[in-house]
Amino acid sequence: MLDRIDHVGIACHDLAARIALYESVFDLEVVSREVNEAQGVREAMLRVAAAPGGASWVQLLEPLGPDTPVGRFLARRGEGVHHIGYGVADITAAMEAIGGRGIRLLDQRPRHGSMGAAIAFLHPADVGGVLTELVQAPGPVQTVS
Amino acid sequence: MLDRIDHVGIACHDLAARIALYESVFDLEVVSREVNEAQGVREAMLRVAAAPGGASWVQLLEPLGPDTPVGRFLARRGEGVHHIGYGVADITAAMEAIGGRGIRLLDQRPRHGSMGAAIAFLHPADVGGVLTELVQAPGPVQTVS
Repeated sequence: MLDRIDHVGIACHDLAARIALYESVFDLEVVSREVNEAQGVREAMLRVAAAPGGASWVQLLEPLGPDTPVGRFLARRGEGVHHIGYGVADITAAMEAIGGRGIRLLDQRPRHGSMGAAIAFLHPADVGGVLTELVQAPGPVQTVS
Repeated sequence: MLDRIDHVGIACHDLAARIALYESVFDLEVVSREVNEAQGVREAMLRVAAAPGGASWVQLLEPLGPDTPVGRFLARRGEGVHHIGYGVADITAAMEAIGGRGIRLLDQRPRHGSMGAAIAFLHPADVGGVLTELVQAPGPVQTVS
């Protein structure tokens, strides 16, 4: 069901400073920057590897304000890993299978994620304290259109 | 420098229960189980994907006691993501490069990690609150010997 570790989502107070750290220490490059108003974040995607089944990424997240999910996370936990995203081939099928196994879905249908992906989050309390995201990368049709 | 996201290290109180969760919810399989006395953990590695450059894993960690790094993490933070491991081709070269860029290494030389890997940890305070591990997978020579 899970194709790969798609990304590690890391919460920070200062996106520019954190990008500079990952670029200078690990030689990673920013491939995409987005502001996602619906999720209340400003983010950057840094490519770790380009595997055949889909790339892996470090996703750096800065909240747009304190009253956002990542803003509350930072106030409660401080900077660090916010969530883990796993790649799936068919997010609708994965959501149905996982929901059918008793795991609560935070999203009832796929929504817009980074770089055109379709995503859905699982309830961390049902996954051992890990906020877990399913990611279906955009297919060739979406890339072409 | 970073080839891939090698693994996500997840701390839990009950390894058997957490393995059962990841197997039943995500269809992952345990490939390796180890007790690492030096690190004070009992662990299981579940394969997410087998990429050409090396596989990716969910590493489930149960502390051998409360007075261990993972035991203290659980007391302080609760269950969840403990660290992120990135694959590197040459861990000695990566440690030298990263140390030369002002990041404190928690290990001064590579040590024994899961499944024969050579590993080293970076100080989380220097990496934005993320306990970060470098992982050099065992090469063909080590596998044969």
